[in-house]
Amino acid sequence: MSDFDGIAISLPRLRARLDALADVGPIEGGGNARLALTDEDRAGRDLVTEWMTDLGLRVEIDEIGNVVGTWPPERIDPPVMTGSHIDTVATGGRFDGTLGVLAGIEVVETVIAAGIELEHPLAVAFFTDEEGSRFAPDMLGSLVFAGGMPLEEALSIRAIDGKVLGEELLRIGYAGPQPCPARPPRAYVELHIEQGPVLEAEGVDIGVVTGVQGISWTELTITGQSNHAGTTPMSMRHDAGYAAADVATFVRALAAELGAPQVATVGRIELQPNLVNVVARRATLTVDLRNTDDARLAEAEHRLVVFCDELARREGVEISTRSLARFAPVDFDPEVIDLVEEIAQARDRSTKRMPSGAGHDAQMLARVCPAGMVFVPSVNGISHNPAELTHDRDLEAGANVLLHVLLRLATGSP
Amino acid sequence: MSDFDGIAISLPRLRARLDALADVGPIEGGGNARLALTDEDRAGRDLVTEWMTDLGLRVEIDEIGNVVGTWPPERIDPPVMTGSHIDTVATGGRFDGTLGVLAGIEVVETVIAAGIELEHPLAVAFFTDEEGSRFAPDMLGSLVFAGGMPLEEALSIRAIDGKVLGEELLRIGYAGPQPCPARPPRAYVELHIEQGPVLEAEGVDIGVVTGVQGISWTELTITGQSNHAGTTPMSMRHDAGYAAADVATFVRALAAELGAPQVATVGRIELQPNLVNVVARRATLTVDLRNTDDARLAEAEHRLVVFCDELARREGVEISTRSLARFAPVDFDPEVIDLVEEIAQARDRSTKRMPSGAGHDAQMLARVCPAGMVFVPSVNGISHNPAELTHDRDLEAGANVLLHVLLRLATGSP
Repeated sequence: MSDFDGIAISLPRLRARLDALADVGPIEGGGNARLALTDEDRAGRDLVTEWMTDLGLRVEIDEIGNVVGTWPPERIDPPVMTGSHIDTVATGGRFDGTLGVLAGIEVVETVIAAGIELEHPLAVAFFTDEEGSRFAPDMLGSLVFAGGMPLEEALSIRAIDGKVLGEELLRIGYAGPQPCPARPPRAYVELHIEQGPVLEAEGVDIGVVTGVQGISWTELTITGQSNHAGTTPMSMRHDAGYAAADVATFVRALAAELGAPQVATVGRIELQPNLVNVVARRATLTVDLRNTDDARLAEAEHRLVVFCDELARREGVEISTRSLARFAPVDFDPEVIDLVEEIAQARDRSTKRMPSGAGHDAQMLARVCPAGMVFVPSVNGISHNPAELTHDRDLEAGANVLLHVLLRLATGSP
Repeated sequence: MSDFDGIAISLPRLRARLDALADVGPIEGGGNARLALTDEDRAGRDLVTEWMTDLGLRVEIDEIGNVVGTWPPERIDPPVMTGSHIDTVATGGRFDGTLGVLAGIEVVETVIAAGIELEHPLAVAFFTDEEGSRFAPDMLGSLVFAGGMPLEEALSIRAIDGKVLGEELLRIGYAGPQPCPARPPRAYVELHIEQGPVLEAEGVDIGVVTGVQGISWTELTITGQSNHAGTTPMSMRHDAGYAAADVATFVRALAAELGAPQVATVGRIELQPNLVNVVARRATLTVDLRNTDDARLAEAEHRLVVFCDELARREGVEISTRSLARFAPVDFDPEVIDLVEEIAQARDRSTKRMPSGAGHDAQMLARVCPAGMVFVPSVNGISHNPAELTHDRDLEAGANVLLHVLLRLATGSP
């Protein structure tokens, strides 16, 4: 046990900030729409930056619009960093991203109030365009922060609404002077809601995140022949709609065969002409494959290619594929993973080591420093939805685990 | 052989009328758009009516807008009728429907020119809204003609563009005085393109149509749960998209198991939210089942219901179904079928007895008089498409079979 055992975050303060930020860009059902670099995002940034400034943090904005608040303000040596993002998807909830940022601010306020002397400074960051809903790819700000994409390339990205990222940064006043890529922090630990159903279903308090699944997104375009559904014998069809369905049932079987943690999803299917009495001439569908093991993920991708070749021959259709995204799995730092687990268990929280199925800023930071994550349960696993919810007791538990992990990293106290 | 062996239709005259009508409501690629009761349909009606009038036929319009031209004009006893429709789908070809109407006019012109004395009058009809693309259901005009739907109900049908059928009939000047249901004709024989690939693939000249497949259209709405494609283990999913795909592959297997002439098609699939990285919460899809045997069709429908019940339990989704259409199979008159076959074979045409996979006005006329159909090959089986094509030799052969079938029915000549 450490010197800081009695220190704890304030749930009411954390809740108050979560509620205040949720009032910015509200949508029906209690959720939020703060798409990156919109007026709503600016208003959210202004509010969070004001909280940092009010606490006395040194607030710095970098060239891609990431905002970092540091305590103590005069310290310029590499900080122990926490953070996440405050942009949302169009139908966002109140916790995705914001919890990590506001819990970070709450941790710093707690540390300041307790008068704790730090061996290394603490920093709280929020990164630009984590969701990727307005500017692709997602996790853009942390990617540029970590040197994974040249700044100029990122600034020239065009939004789904046609606007250019660099111009939107200037417009909302968040094109800062701090250089990208940034100087690496000493370590990075991010608190986030699970966005999945596992912790709740298993009755576990804290997810000890071991890494992020690799992601493979493929768009398939299947070209068959449009035919009358009544006059065309089954044997003479080249049915793009059937072929699409066959792919979807195949990837389900593939996931079952490869076993967890392999997941496989066909979330999008579009047929042409999409009429009840016409055999579809064209189908477009996406296959989302994820695995924590890169070799297994590559095997799943290969099996899909083999299946499509066989399907194309069997049905007399053409199948073309286009990669929409491919990220290798990320492993978090073993010492950070151990530390998160140790801290949570020492505080009598049940834990589960688990990969993240979603992408997070922490995976970009993992390129440049020891990194890890803390998950708290999501009610019904719902996220990217106004119904997104994490109970107060879990918010509190997660923020306290974050507090003590950061204290250990920033003070070296056992 | 008959007294009329030397009589034949004129292909150039038939072609000239087909080409002239195809100039009304042209679309890119050489096709037509004459949706029922639009200005384009009116222009087509005016042209065909003018041709009938010019030939000296008595032209009558009924309360649902069907147009009937009779020869000789003074004869009011039940005619031997032929015909079809001149309305088209939005991406229609030049032959679907129009061939039957214009070949009918060509037959009458040939009969007039040859000075043939008829025991029974000949009539050529074109029926309102056969395609059903603007006003549902399809085959509406012939349905009302045959007493299958009350006139008032039909007149109040609303178009996909919001207009009311009765008002559109008045607007284009085709709300006629002849009563519906109409007095049944003596017999009805319709020439039509096959709209399928069978005749061409088998090298057959003339399809002797034995009846029309029964049709069962069902819309399924599958409700599952929207979830993150990365964070939700396969075992915890209620994936409406997967369930839709499973239905589509099931109906393919069902058709294979029941064997021809059973056909089964999933032509429409829509997912919500239809995103690459979200497990679909909802899927809407249609199942089109057809068979010439009503008991087999009912068996296919039952098997689908049983499968959906099992699927809903297995996947934890809800599946609701809605019948979009259900028509029992129609058998054409055995004597008319025999006559079409005999006439075609006597003219050295190869023949194949076959059901129609598509619906036609003839199936409505079959409710009130002996009815049958003559099919001619469709190149590549393509229809409802500007690329729709039937070769001149097949147009000529089909029109001549129609001529001699009608002559036999209208003269009693052996």
